[in-house]
Amino acid sequence: MTPPAILPDALVLLDYVGIGVFAVSGALLAAEKKQTLVTFIFFAVITGVGGGTVRDLLIGAPVFWVGTNSTLLICIGAALGVWFLSRRAIAERALLWFDAVGMAAYATYGASKALTYGVAPVPAFAMGVMTACVGGIIRDVLAGEPSILMRPELYVTAAALASGLFVGLTMVGAAPGLAALVAGLAGFSLRGAAIARGLSLPAYDR
Amino acid sequence: MTPPAILPDALVLLDYVGIGVFAVSGALLAAEKKQTLVTFIFFAVITGVGGGTVRDLLIGAPVFWVGTNSTLLICIGAALGVWFLSRRAIAERALLWFDAVGMAAYATYGASKALTYGVAPVPAFAMGVMTACVGGIIRDVLAGEPSILMRPELYVTAAALASGLFVGLTMVGAAPGLAALVAGLAGFSLRGAAIARGLSLPAYDR
Amino acid sequence: MTPPAILPDALVLLDYVGIGVFAVSGALLAAEKKQTLVTFIFFAVITGVGGGTVRDLLIGAPVFWVGTNSTLLICIGAALGVWFLSRRAIAERALLWFDAVGMAAYATYGASKALTYGVAPVPAFAMGVMTACVGGIIRDVLAGEPSILMRPELYVTAAALASGLFVGLTMVGAAPGLAALVAGLAGFSLRGAAIARGLSLPAYDR
Repeated sequence: MTPPAILPDALVLLDYVGIGVFAVSGALLAAEKKQTLVTFIFFAVITGVGGGTVRDLLIGAPVFWVGTNSTLLICIGAALGVWFLSRRAIAERALLWFDAVGMAAYATYGASKALTYGVAPVPAFAMGVMTACVGGIIRDVLAGEPSILMRPELYVTAAALASGLFVGLTMVGAAPGLAALVAGLAGFSLRGAAIARGLSLPAYDR
Repeated sequence: MTPPAILPDALVLLDYVGIGVFAVSGALLAAEKKQTLVTFIFFAVITGVGGGTVRDLLIGAPVFWVGTNSTLLICIGAALGVWFLSRRAIAERALLWFDAVGMAAYATYGASKALTYGVAPVPAFAMGVMTACVGGIIRDVLAGEPSILMRPELYVTAAALASGLFVGLTMVGAAPGLAALVAGLAGFSLRGAAIARGLSLPAYDR
Repeated sequence: MTPPAILPDALVLLDYVGIGVFAVSGALLAAEKKQTLVTFIFFAVITGVGGGTVRDLLIGAPVFWVGTNSTLLICIGAALGVWFLSRRAIAERALLWFDAVGMAAYATYGASKALTYGVAPVPAFAMGVMTACVGGIIRDVLAGEPSILMRPELYVTAAALASGLFVGLTMVGAAPGLAALVAGLAGFSLRGAAIARGLSLPAYDR
């Protein structure tokens, strides 16, 4: 792998948004399952950093949360917040929308980080999708829930749109900031349409 | 880890066979579960590259599909093929035999790659087994299926035979090509016997 | 990551205790599920080395069992032992206590290894918890069992106490040997109290 080139600051911000929002969604699943505070924290950490961790291992980057205290503290704070505030205080509907922001942000950031490490375009696209989806998939497997992978709603697809647009626009020479804006908005819009109108993909039926 | 020495070309071919055959098996499970095209692709990728990815992370090699576009495109192509061709067009029986080829090829190739990275014999043997089995195990866990690990049929055992023979023959000085041929054929034959005659291991019963 | 500094010999011993005890617990789950000898070995290996493997990947250390034959042989030996000795020969109660020793040893050792690789305190604490818990979690997911994560008993909490105490005491300048002794004993005592008196954490109930 070549060493990292430029990681645009705006994209680093996307990373923090993804961590916080996904950590909250992990803790909320623990709440739904009536778990202990320790499980809240475990789920918040796994959901918050899981996707980015797998990405960093695959592209040969130092795992992003190992050299700093703040990332895990954000996740632990999110778990404590969900534990101490009543769950009903966080409207589920609002969470779905926050999660859509996190997904679009993470898919774009993941693809961007992979490209800066010299990863080829198709695997860089896959890294964006995984950054956005793998944390939630691990969370669901541990909780014994059917994962987002097995549901027809547009979630992985929206992540693929964001990641694919970012890689494609970068390939044709677009500025990273512009590519991130377009890609993130497109992924968020598609996910938003799926939430608002219940869009879903056709299932295999032969 | 020492840097890689010789990776015989014939063994690299084994790798492509393993990827394609396992990707098809991942997509077929998605078809059985009546999933969407996105899930077909996700399962094809995970099953096709999962075992080799874990092997590369453990032995400290660059993950084999990150620097190239072709590996993921093979997996995506396999998923599209299964989606657009009717499932009945691919005889299940034929798939079982293709999968046996993939398993024997991957077990041999995985052990070989580990040895060329200077891994000790026992873990190199384990790498062969994992390369052949871990992709399918992850696929089954994500799909909520009982994994091959929990079934008595000779699958992991056949992978262990191929991987163990390759490591053993190499230790006593056999040429890599010959060792791969003997090991791959032995693993394939044992798996074939299990398919044809329903051989299985005795379960613990005390 | 900075290269490893001092890994106290006493802590390396803790590692072997953890491997052996956890490998036995993996094989015992395979026995309970009436599996074959191959599954016994697979479960013993995954439970014995799983947590430490994830830790090493995350901190950028060479995976600890890849360069040597002995670690996997210990796990395989543990699986054979459980297979050939009647299960009733190993009192379940005794196993719970052995497992408590392994958990406290692994949590302390995992945090220590992370600190010697220059990992920041909060993630080093998380590495200790993961080293102690992740092998068992993977084992339970593969077996289709509810994992320790989803049960209210004090297990992850005891690992967190051991790991947190070790990191905290090291931060304030305690000698590694003393810090390991205090941390390991505290974690073991808390887990022991949970086993003896059925202590558990309150679950979320709103």
